[in-house]
Amino acid sequence: MSNEILLLNGPNLNLLGTRETDMYGDTTLEDVENLVSSAAEAAGYSVRCAQSNVEGELVDALQAASNCAGVLLNAGAYTHTSVALRDAIKGAGAKVVEIHISNVFQREDFRHVSMIGPVCIGSVSGFGIDSYLVGLQALIMANE
Amino acid sequence: MSNEILLLNGPNLNLLGTRETDMYGDTTLEDVENLVSSAAEAAGYSVRCAQSNVEGELVDALQAASNCAGVLLNAGAYTHTSVALRDAIKGAGAKVVEIHISNVFQREDFRHVSMIGPVCIGSVSGFGIDSYLVGLQALIMANE
Amino acid sequence: MSNEILLLNGPNLNLLGTRETDMYGDTTLEDVENLVSSAAEAAGYSVRCAQSNVEGELVDALQAASNCAGVLLNAGAYTHTSVALRDAIKGAGAKVVEIHISNVFQREDFRHVSMIGPVCIGSVSGFGIDSYLVGLQALIMANE
Amino acid sequence: MSNEILLLNGPNLNLLGTRETDMYGDTTLEDVENLVSSAAEAAGYSVRCAQSNVEGELVDALQAASNCAGVLLNAGAYTHTSVALRDAIKGAGAKVVEIHISNVFQREDFRHVSMIGPVCIGSVSGFGIDSYLVGLQALIMANE
Amino acid sequence: MSNEILLLNGPNLNLLGTRETDMYGDTTLEDVENLVSSAAEAAGYSVRCAQSNVEGELVDALQAASNCAGVLLNAGAYTHTSVALRDAIKGAGAKVVEIHISNVFQREDFRHVSMIGPVCIGSVSGFGIDSYLVGLQALIMANE
Amino acid sequence: MSNEILLLNGPNLNLLGTRETDMYGDTTLEDVENLVSSAAEAAGYSVRCAQSNVEGELVDALQAASNCAGVLLNAGAYTHTSVALRDAIKGAGAKVVEIHISNVFQREDFRHVSMIGPVCIGSVSGFGIDSYLVGLQALIMANE
Amino acid sequence: MSNEILLLNGPNLNLLGTRETDMYGDTTLEDVENLVSSAAEAAGYSVRCAQSNVEGELVDALQAASNCAGVLLNAGAYTHTSVALRDAIKGAGAKVVEIHISNVFQREDFRHVSMIGPVCIGSVSGFGIDSYLVGLQALIMANE
Amino acid sequence: MSNEILLLNGPNLNLLGTRETDMYGDTTLEDVENLVSSAAEAAGYSVRCAQSNVEGELVDALQAASNCAGVLLNAGAYTHTSVALRDAIKGAGAKVVEIHISNVFQREDFRHVSMIGPVCIGSVSGFGIDSYLVGLQALIMANE
Amino acid sequence: MSNEILLLNGPNLNLLGTRETDMYGDTTLEDVENLVSSAAEAAGYSVRCAQSNVEGELVDALQAASNCAGVLLNAGAYTHTSVALRDAIKGAGAKVVEIHISNVFQREDFRHVSMIGPVCIGSVSGFGIDSYLVGLQALIMANE
Amino acid sequence: MSNEILLLNGPNLNLLGTRETDMYGDTTLEDVENLVSSAAEAAGYSVRCAQSNVEGELVDALQAASNCAGVLLNAGAYTHTSVALRDAIKGAGAKVVEIHISNVFQREDFRHVSMIGPVCIGSVSGFGIDSYLVGLQALIMANE
Amino acid sequence: MSNEILLLNGPNLNLLGTRETDMYGDTTLEDVENLVSSAAEAAGYSVRCAQSNVEGELVDALQAASNCAGVLLNAGAYTHTSVALRDAIKGAGAKVVEIHISNVFQREDFRHVSMIGPVCIGSVSGFGIDSYLVGLQALIMANE
Amino acid sequence: MSNEILLLNGPNLNLLGTRETDMYGDTTLEDVENLVSSAAEAAGYSVRCAQSNVEGELVDALQAASNCAGVLLNAGAYTHTSVALRDAIKGAGAKVVEIHISNVFQREDFRHVSMIGPVCIGSVSGFGIDSYLVGLQALIMANE
Repeated sequence: MSNEILLLNGPNLNLLGTRETDMYGDTTLEDVENLVSSAAEAAGYSVRCAQSNVEGELVDALQAASNCAGVLLNAGAYTHTSVALRDAIKGAGAKVVEIHISNVFQREDFRHVSMIGPVCIGSVSGFGIDSYLVGLQALIMANE
Repeated sequence: MSNEILLLNGPNLNLLGTRETDMYGDTTLEDVENLVSSAAEAAGYSVRCAQSNVEGELVDALQAASNCAGVLLNAGAYTHTSVALRDAIKGAGAKVVEIHISNVFQREDFRHVSMIGPVCIGSVSGFGIDSYLVGLQALIMANE
Repeated sequence: MSNEILLLNGPNLNLLGTRETDMYGDTTLEDVENLVSSAAEAAGYSVRCAQSNVEGELVDALQAASNCAGVLLNAGAYTHTSVALRDAIKGAGAKVVEIHISNVFQREDFRHVSMIGPVCIGSVSGFGIDSYLVGLQALIMANE
Repeated sequence: MSNEILLLNGPNLNLLGTRETDMYGDTTLEDVENLVSSAAEAAGYSVRCAQSNVEGELVDALQAASNCAGVLLNAGAYTHTSVALRDAIKGAGAKVVEIHISNVFQREDFRHVSMIGPVCIGSVSGFGIDSYLVGLQALIMANE
Repeated sequence: MSNEILLLNGPNLNLLGTRETDMYGDTTLEDVENLVSSAAEAAGYSVRCAQSNVEGELVDALQAASNCAGVLLNAGAYTHTSVALRDAIKGAGAKVVEIHISNVFQREDFRHVSMIGPVCIGSVSGFGIDSYLVGLQALIMANE
Repeated sequence: MSNEILLLNGPNLNLLGTRETDMYGDTTLEDVENLVSSAAEAAGYSVRCAQSNVEGELVDALQAASNCAGVLLNAGAYTHTSVALRDAIKGAGAKVVEIHISNVFQREDFRHVSMIGPVCIGSVSGFGIDSYLVGLQALIMANE
Repeated sequence: MSNEILLLNGPNLNLLGTRETDMYGDTTLEDVENLVSSAAEAAGYSVRCAQSNVEGELVDALQAASNCAGVLLNAGAYTHTSVALRDAIKGAGAKVVEIHISNVFQREDFRHVSMIGPVCIGSVSGFGIDSYLVGLQALIMANE
Repeated sequence: MSNEILLLNGPNLNLLGTRETDMYGDTTLEDVENLVSSAAEAAGYSVRCAQSNVEGELVDALQAASNCAGVLLNAGAYTHTSVALRDAIKGAGAKVVEIHISNVFQREDFRHVSMIGPVCIGSVSGFGIDSYLVGLQALIMANE
Repeated sequence: MSNEILLLNGPNLNLLGTRETDMYGDTTLEDVENLVSSAAEAAGYSVRCAQSNVEGELVDALQAASNCAGVLLNAGAYTHTSVALRDAIKGAGAKVVEIHISNVFQREDFRHVSMIGPVCIGSVSGFGIDSYLVGLQALIMANE
Repeated sequence: MSNEILLLNGPNLNLLGTRETDMYGDTTLEDVENLVSSAAEAAGYSVRCAQSNVEGELVDALQAASNCAGVLLNAGAYTHTSVALRDAIKGAGAKVVEIHISNVFQREDFRHVSMIGPVCIGSVSGFGIDSYLVGLQALIMANE
Repeated sequence: MSNEILLLNGPNLNLLGTRETDMYGDTTLEDVENLVSSAAEAAGYSVRCAQSNVEGELVDALQAASNCAGVLLNAGAYTHTSVALRDAIKGAGAKVVEIHISNVFQREDFRHVSMIGPVCIGSVSGFGIDSYLVGLQALIMANE
Repeated sequence: MSNEILLLNGPNLNLLGTRETDMYGDTTLEDVENLVSSAAEAAGYSVRCAQSNVEGELVDALQAASNCAGVLLNAGAYTHTSVALRDAIKGAGAKVVEIHISNVFQREDFRHVSMIGPVCIGSVSGFGIDSYLVGLQALIMANE
């Protein structure tokens, strides 16, 4: 197992910080990737970053992460519908942490269901951009 | 805001007019694109056309439409399941009109649910190929 | 078949433009009837207008429309509960277009069900008062 | 108690025999009323006939039937939704027989529920126009 | 097609008139069979009677009835659960009338569902023992 | 705003005190109207009384009550099914108090749902005829 | 039976008037208790007041109220989940009136269910603090 | 129609035989493709093989298969959610056989629903890698 | 374990080929039994055939099959309702293959549930009479 | 009433102790019958034993038990689906005790429903073979 | 493990024998405790008795019972809602027997669900006060 | 606002580390409290610790926390059922972080619902004892 962590973001997160900023704030995805990378490096890990709007490309990325020290996964909209991501996580063997920026339980009913939750080692939601850093912390602790 | 309208078609609509013609008629997607373009131009708008079978590519297209005067979206099968498209429409900021060729309420139960309806400005369904032209009319009126 | 179109409005639409104007605007029912009549006449159709708060009187009106070139029906609250209107539409034989001013999919769950949708030729919703004009356009195209 | 029987028909049954004749046959409502009257008279009963498309007028008619020897009620579309008719039947005190021309269980799901069934003495469905005569027979036997 | 009618009774109806007489009355199954036979003979039909508590034996009986002029079927408890009886009725080709002594809609929820209703020509319920005679009448009229 | 209160009763309440007296008592609707009028007058309000079995006429009455000091509404059976009444209450702008004579929660499941409850200012149920007087008290307090 | 009335308040009502005052107003629980006591005394009743956040202590209080002239019960959050309170009310034998400050039907779905409603004599909801006084009025009338 | 058969595998099946081998065995996708090809060739058919993790690419592949003698489709996770695949199968016109390696009915509830089952000619599941060969056999028989 | 295979058919399959031939074809049960026997013998297995319309007799047959090399089970209508068959299969210890002639997923909703699927080794459906031969093939492969 | 107790076992219980012994133990049905008989005789009762895999034969047995001092009924799989057994128990008039060897609440969801529970005097489940002896004890106490 | 048995009763059972005696009889909780103690002592066990209306105090009591020979638990109303009791039983390690005086399956739907059933060794319900003695018997047998 | 953090644990967590250690590990509640206190102190916060098995006492504790810098709440079993805790959190005004040791989404269905999630600022689950430390980190970041 390498000491690389995969930071994987799903659909529409490429626009983070540029759209609906009243809900998601104005931190961009690049900002998030830099924040997580810095924090991870301080703890002795490197971070590889990826984002896609295509469900199948997220599956590809998870398949390629089986040697990682772990995955921080914000699957966005696919969280609630994707059996394919669930299967990819189970198959990957890597420790995956489920991340959500907003508190999904305060939103529409269909966002209360997580298809991937049961196969992740744990989940963090609702803390805004901090959710990524808190999830990273959890992943590092799980590797100790 | 430009005066460009995006005509965006989803999965299997590339085969329009060549398969299941008893249900969908023999007008091809190219025919539809020409009809809509002509009608739009007559009203002072230009039309950009796109089609994809990949959910994530439709998300990409919607993200790129934020400066458009509006979007005519026939999301096809993804209408009923895609949270990602819903999020993309909400994020895009453009006026999106939901289009359906057939009367979805006369078909299987799972086609009665629209994940994108609540974030579109309105919807038109059941008028065959005319649904596109009627939806265009609605979009033009919404811009007046 | 005559070239008369029936514009039929259901419960509470007699107050259009005078109550809850922040949601429905200040165009009155009489304004709508005039707008639709003018547009129809320009296309060679005459328009007969009717409104009732009584479900059974809407049934009566639909029964009397079997010779019409079509019906523009905003059944209001009865859209979601009336089997009687559904049966009347099916029995009438006329082409009926379902109209909604607001985007019903953005409102309470019980407004997401349409009892009449499956027996109309198509439906238009969410474009405000324009929904009537757009629906008229669809009806005219369906008669060509 | 009088020896009068009320034959009460609900919404859209005034068009019986003139619309959708492939499903309902070409016997008109007047024909049905004559058939039932003749058969009832042969058994010593008189028949009063009424029809309305308005739910509340059917309630009125049931309220006025409390002295009747019984009611043959084809509530049509209101069968499946009307709590008001249910309450009227319970309040009327008269013996009410539920009648359906078609086999409602072969049709849409929402026609499988009868709001009035539990407060009628019995029900007859599926025998076409004969359902009225069979229901009359049942009512006469219940009075013996 | 013969002029024989099958009177087929399901589980627990062999005890009719001897148990729970406050609900079902004291007419025995033999009495019912005699009543129906007499009435049928008066109309020129003969009646064959059968009863079983075993679902599969009721299937056997229906399979053997394909040449009958019709079947009066009180499937009792199997009404609500038996797909096998449904298939047998559909396969038999004979006209089957569904009979219930009590008004099933006044009883437990699970008795409101009829697996066999959609494949019978019609149904009669709630008139006590008279349901059989009324159902016979309907069957005879359906053969005229 | 006038100081008139509308006492509006729905389907079957015209027979109050004359049918099912074991459940509803023998106070007639006229008695109720007199009781409420006297109590209201003692507090400086006048009362206008109306009753109808027709859903649409109740809508008419609510539309006409926008200047009233409030409405006491026993919508009877329409409580549980009428979207039209709900819309009329919301549109009317008057304060509407929902009244029920019986404890609806002790009755059939379909009576546990109130379509109008969410748009009334409050509701009173279960106290028999007293529910009207208690509701009146609440309405008067809400106007202080 | 004594002429004592129990005013029993459930979880979080001890903070009434000090938290979320935009929703519940600034009347404190002590204010409510004084208001109800004064009104009751004017009608010849005394009032005993109790509040607890513990479901089982509310059960204790109801068990101790069997000799009371009645109970005004605002069970707060336990309204929607407590079978134990329901059993205690049924066992107590006292007349219990269900009170709610807010209109529960305008809030989350889980607040639309009342476990205690069916065993109370009636219920009052939505009139703010007035709900207590209106409920008291109903209790007094029920004792006349 | 050609004599080519398309062997089409969906998400995560590219890792067959290398992950979760206790559940799926150690036969790789390449092995499966070779096994099916050999068996098909022995019967006079050629086999084209494709796999993708992207739903829309599977739609593309099905659209391109309309001249094939048939399709063996293991849609993996998309089986349970994809309306787009369903539409592609219906549009393709080719005979499609649904294949599953594991017995989906022994797994999570969401795997018990097949969106594609109703539009395939038949389905084979639970026999491990043999499911492909058995499905091939069925396809060949269907072409005889 | 013997090399005998049990071919067990459930309710109404005794009439295969003689009723509803447009849906099931005109191959009789005897034909099916001969086809399967020949194919099995060619592979070194003998076949014992049984059919019953009685659920409990199918249980008996499964109990007696514990030494068989496997069972081909078309449980017909009992597939969807029988817990008893499920228990018998689990208790039998033999390898059972679930067979369906028609594509059950294209039929009524209640046929989409299989009570026995989860305890069979696999299932084959939709290939007409070929389903038996394909299922046999699967059973033979499972024994290799 | 005789002093005979009927010990009635349903489907698959004839194999008790010989199959799935890790779940049900190795006590055979004959052992159970001897244990119950001995214990009953010690308390002055005789025991008649019966078992069948056929639902209808269990109905027969219950019908024949109306003079018994009581019935110990392990209906096995039919517990969860049989309306016929429920009717037979209600009709029999004898005291029936529901017995289950395993804790049905720890198993599949469909085993959590008991169709017969509501018409038995009580039920005992989860104590293995001891459930029979404990149920016998309860039956004897109920006869004292 | 000690030879002490905990007899633990939940909410409202402290009033046993003094309220609703037509449903629960006039045996008091003290009587029950004496009956169980005597029977247990005869078998060599001692009994400790506890009752509380507070869910959390029942949790406390179960936590303190880990050395007991077993627990007889009538959790009353908390049976149907308490996840906390379920967790306490699972954590306790002691053998817990679920007891109900009445046949919960004959009562309201919400009493048909047991949150604690799946973690008890078995359950006894419906035999009135005898349920305790029968449950004791089962517990003693489970310790042999 | 003070710089005190409340660490509040719900039912059965007092036994942490002593029961079901294979699922929850052998870290005791005291250990957890020490770990959190140390980490908080390092960041300049003090920690007050409380635990109760009584729902109402947890409500009390939350009411008393309105001046805290935040609350770490592991509500245990009450997470899934307690409306009272939800109301207390909303009323408290303090920032509350929802904590779970295990991944609740891998357990029983009733643990997938969180009544408190929508009113907490965020939630952390599945990381074992680390969930507390990770949640603390999130709370500290939310205060920066």
